[in-house]
Amino acid sequence: MTISTISSFTPKAPTLMGPGPSDVSQRVLNALAQPTLGHLDPSFVGLMDETKQLLQEVFQTNNQMTMPISAPGSAGMEACFVNLVEPGDKVIVCQNGVFGGRMYQNVIRSGGEAVLIEDPWGEQTKPEKLKAALEANPDTKIVAFVHAETSTGVENDAKTLCAIAKEYGCLTIVDTVTSLAGIPLYIDDWQIDASYSGTQKCLSCVPGLSPVTFSDLALEKIKSRKTPVQSWFLDLNLILGYWGQGKARAYHHTAPVNSVYAFHESLVAVLQEGLENSWNRHREVHNYLKQGLESLGLEFAVDEAYRLPQLNVVWIPKGIDDASTRAKLLNEFDLEIGAGLGEFAGKAWRIGLMGSSCTKANVDKCVSALTKILSN
Amino acid sequence: MTISTISSFTPKAPTLMGPGPSDVSQRVLNALAQPTLGHLDPSFVGLMDETKQLLQEVFQTNNQMTMPISAPGSAGMEACFVNLVEPGDKVIVCQNGVFGGRMYQNVIRSGGEAVLIEDPWGEQTKPEKLKAALEANPDTKIVAFVHAETSTGVENDAKTLCAIAKEYGCLTIVDTVTSLAGIPLYIDDWQIDASYSGTQKCLSCVPGLSPVTFSDLALEKIKSRKTPVQSWFLDLNLILGYWGQGKARAYHHTAPVNSVYAFHESLVAVLQEGLENSWNRHREVHNYLKQGLESLGLEFAVDEAYRLPQLNVVWIPKGIDDASTRAKLLNEFDLEIGAGLGEFAGKAWRIGLMGSSCTKANVDKCVSALTKILSN
Repeated sequence: MTISTISSFTPKAPTLMGPGPSDVSQRVLNALAQPTLGHLDPSFVGLMDETKQLLQEVFQTNNQMTMPISAPGSAGMEACFVNLVEPGDKVIVCQNGVFGGRMYQNVIRSGGEAVLIEDPWGEQTKPEKLKAALEANPDTKIVAFVHAETSTGVENDAKTLCAIAKEYGCLTIVDTVTSLAGIPLYIDDWQIDASYSGTQKCLSCVPGLSPVTFSDLALEKIKSRKTPVQSWFLDLNLILGYWGQGKARAYHHTAPVNSVYAFHESLVAVLQEGLENSWNRHREVHNYLKQGLESLGLEFAVDEAYRLPQLNVVWIPKGIDDASTRAKLLNEFDLEIGAGLGEFAGKAWRIGLMGSSCTKANVDKCVSALTKILSN
Repeated sequence: MTISTISSFTPKAPTLMGPGPSDVSQRVLNALAQPTLGHLDPSFVGLMDETKQLLQEVFQTNNQMTMPISAPGSAGMEACFVNLVEPGDKVIVCQNGVFGGRMYQNVIRSGGEAVLIEDPWGEQTKPEKLKAALEANPDTKIVAFVHAETSTGVENDAKTLCAIAKEYGCLTIVDTVTSLAGIPLYIDDWQIDASYSGTQKCLSCVPGLSPVTFSDLALEKIKSRKTPVQSWFLDLNLILGYWGQGKARAYHHTAPVNSVYAFHESLVAVLQEGLENSWNRHREVHNYLKQGLESLGLEFAVDEAYRLPQLNVVWIPKGIDDASTRAKLLNEFDLEIGAGLGEFAGKAWRIGLMGSSCTKANVDKCVSALTKILSN
């Protein structure tokens, strides 16, 4: 292709029922496309303050340090680790999927000493394993795990795991990328000290920001670090000067102004529906999908007791080709579902019911399309 | 404010004549608000390939590794340093404003040994100082400087500085945040090995992405590192798997899909105007502004020989209050100009003529408003 033939792009977007991004509603897209304000404009600073308040509510926290990082969830993850892990700190990471493994990488790259607790893909992290690891490693500073594992569809028992970590005086870092607004999550009640999420999952905002929250205990650790945070861009001591309380805001980086408009609107939308109503909708629509998929003979990879309603991982039936089936769904039925990731690549599909995508009409569309393809 | 009173936000955006963001055109906002595609959708992957090609043209480079980092310019800067600087590497940083200082911080945090060459704010980096520093530090691996210093309005002589660095076998890292599409910039001809820019300056796209480019020489250094890159999110070895050539793309992070739509559209727009035409427009409109500001008795902080056309730094006249004047411009004239930064805070204003904001009509608006305020 030569440059001169490249012109404006017009996407023909399918219904998004993969592991995220989910369908972004028109009201959020409209908010996104409003005229750009300067990142230090007083009215934008007012919007930032509102956004923090709304996000506190969605995270169910009173943490002052609650805001979006100006980059995707992977950067939110990194913000948690580079700020909280000091060189030599021992960190226990619970892994039962791709994203626990990414946490482990983050600990290593932050100079920490990582202790890995592994559970099989598709199963929960076992609380007794965490307890045993803490007994064996009494110098552990931090316990980290994923609440909703996007690669497997498993919900880990965040409340119990945090309670154990607290018994041993540890800080807790919890990945809530796929859980936020999709299933119950209580940052304060569950004693989560640091958490990062994504905008493009159950909030149904465009991808590109990572909502984060830090407890006062976490903040204390960050402020008393002996070594500087290795990342300038993600150093919360600096970011706080821009996102912090009060009128005075110091320039740190240029905020993604339009994405913040969209994020604010998506939070308003979630709270207009009501957080509990959103959780209930995800559960109800999941049950409806479950009936449909089981009627097709598809089997879930995850036990019902800890299965995520917003991310349904099913085994690809024998004799069915993975890639061509997904391509057919996309090209003939305007429907995106997710491929398997990591150990599940080629073995499972990930069918998302997140945020705006989580409707019975979408379930009908998906089950009907799969019925046609699988019966051929 | 209680949560229940928070509703949708409607910005009343002024004309943006600060140091960026600049005015985003309606066509770019429209592109931004198109329906979200999955980040691995084949049509999005096609858009990524086009975007790389367009960006190569705007950077004037054949570098294969040319793409936007999924975060603002500060993260683009960090991507250059954490990938290219290995612990113990000696890096000469030329500083004559805020952003050279930020480069210095990045070297330190990447574990490098930074040698700082300082020139006064508002003056150019002196090539003979760089030469002397390289003579005194023959083990220097990298030379880093800012092409267009956004805090002072100075253009550094990138071609000459890079040629000197090359004489001593160094890699070059150049900040082109404010220069890209505003003044001549030739990545390949000038022997720039790594560069990061911003979307919200002379490209007039929304803020949030950082276009970067890396030469094969830079890539070689990255691939032969003895230590892993400290940032997982910014590790180019991993990012390449997603943005790299070829059809196969591995998930690394969720790309900010809608921002990439907007970025693509802004590149198409720049190339439709023509890169040289864009440079010439910035120069011509600058000359027009210069007449207007000088007729008001305002003095430029930077010598004409190396003054940036797109960022005009003028001294605040004696007896004129900085903050209240800018507030009046914003509230009564719908016009944002920039405050001074760092050493220039409270002493200078920064009047941007970047991308879509760079028009004679905007100059008229600005000069007319300043005339009214300053004559009161």
